[in-house]
Amino acid sequence: MKPSGEDQAAPAAGPWEECFQAAVQLALRAGQIIRKALTEEKRVSTKTSAADLVTETDHLVEDLIISELRERFPSHRFIAEEAAASGAKCVLTHNPTWIIDPIDGTCNFVHRFPTVAVSIGFAVRQELEFGVIYHCTEERLYTGRRGGGAFCNGQRLRVSGETDLSKALVLTEIGPKRDPATLKLFLSNMERLLHAKAHGVRVIGSSTLALCHLASGAADAYYQFGLHCWDLAAATVIIREAGGIVIDTSGGPLDLMACRVVAASTREMAMLIAQALQTINYGRDDEK
Amino acid sequence: MKPSGEDQAAPAAGPWEECFQAAVQLALRAGQIIRKALTEEKRVSTKTSAADLVTETDHLVEDLIISELRERFPSHRFIAEEAAASGAKCVLTHNPTWIIDPIDGTCNFVHRFPTVAVSIGFAVRQELEFGVIYHCTEERLYTGRRGGGAFCNGQRLRVSGETDLSKALVLTEIGPKRDPATLKLFLSNMERLLHAKAHGVRVIGSSTLALCHLASGAADAYYQFGLHCWDLAAATVIIREAGGIVIDTSGGPLDLMACRVVAASTREMAMLIAQALQTINYGRDDEK
Repeated sequence: MKPSGEDQAAPAAGPWEECFQAAVQLALRAGQIIRKALTEEKRVSTKTSAADLVTETDHLVEDLIISELRERFPSHRFIAEEAAASGAKCVLTHNPTWIIDPIDGTCNFVHRFPTVAVSIGFAVRQELEFGVIYHCTEERLYTGRRGGGAFCNGQRLRVSGETDLSKALVLTEIGPKRDPATLKLFLSNMERLLHAKAHGVRVIGSSTLALCHLASGAADAYYQFGLHCWDLAAATVIIREAGGIVIDTSGGPLDLMACRVVAASTREMAMLIAQALQTINYGRDDEK
Repeated sequence: MKPSGEDQAAPAAGPWEECFQAAVQLALRAGQIIRKALTEEKRVSTKTSAADLVTETDHLVEDLIISELRERFPSHRFIAEEAAASGAKCVLTHNPTWIIDPIDGTCNFVHRFPTVAVSIGFAVRQELEFGVIYHCTEERLYTGRRGGGAFCNGQRLRVSGETDLSKALVLTEIGPKRDPATLKLFLSNMERLLHAKAHGVRVIGSSTLALCHLASGAADAYYQFGLHCWDLAAATVIIREAGGIVIDTSGGPLDLMACRVVAASTREMAMLIAQALQTINYGRDDEK
């Protein structure tokens, strides 16, 4: 079914069924390419810092996904990690927009550390409609559709519902900036959460898969400064549809372009995390 | 084949074949129990700190493994996590000794975070003969036998061979102590490695599985203060047989009872890590 203006009033992701199915098929195809590439030698380049890596496979997978989608949906817009790194503007308009991270966890990918995902989000009128995340090595397909629930390989996802920070498993990522001042703030935030007696803090090297763990109830909170809209778009739908909360680190509503996020199993937990954090300024995706 | 005194002169783990096969079978059976328990409600208790957790399943699995091994090998000794927590002494004699962690990653297990392993190591005359580690949720069986190589699900493991810290993926764990002074040292060590421009630091919540990633070439170094002999015994054989190095954080030879370790793909990398670290004192396993 081709989406039209009228379809957007429908309650679930139904009107965007064709787009959703295309995202699923492309995520699975991209995953195959990434799994094969994991066994091969890689040429690695750096972007904003020595820790901000990109490979030929990131470009190959992004080009594959965008060219296929552009052919099928010529009026749609695209925001994607490697295009942005090459200078394309990240502006979310009211047009149907695909928000794509071809390989989330590129540093893991380079090291063959088996925590690597493809992330494809889709927004219409600046509202996130669905998200598809494929954990390439473990072959887990996470999906969420607005009003339609969140699933992993067909099994319904539910957040843990935990409200007590002293019983929480908290996930975060270091972020690409490695200057001494940024590292101090990153470590100070981790220290605050450990002082607050969080059960543990985990750093797995993939924002989208960390957020999928949260959606599946395997962790209770996630925060990060320095992630991008393509790390967040798909995961946000999945977490919300699993009953979780995604907000700005200020405690206010999520700003997809603000390069910062708190996500949690409950609003109470999200606010506790937000209150504990010191801000690390990474600028905005739509001002780069 | 029953091991005897003469067998110990044999070059590979051959003489301990029966023990090795028993370890593999018990790790797989324990993994089944743990996978089932992951779907059920858990009663959680704390040990040395609010972050040092234990469940009924830890006890159940440890009792299963030890009772089966004791029946088959009545003269052998045992060092195991939950027995030690109940006051049993951790002393490695010249007798054949099994060193067991029934659930490595108990905090992950409690949260259903899918990074949980069974670890069974075996030492004779204080020398590690073999190690078996089973990643319960991903169903990956890691094995290493002295002189016989290291494998994951039958596939030979090789470390990365990386010598350059600025190209390294480094793994660590927070450890059970959460007092402010210990946390400061933990975070300061992480800061030193990030200042040294390590590609990334990962914290996955399971020492044994982190060490298996190192053995498989998916990471380049691991360090930790506050782990125990049952976290290290099996993994040490696997890493050595994959071509890696396991040493003390001082840069000297590994002391299995010293509650601290640096493991790396090369001696050069291990020494760089050891030189960067500040010591966190956790005492010794054999003095508790």
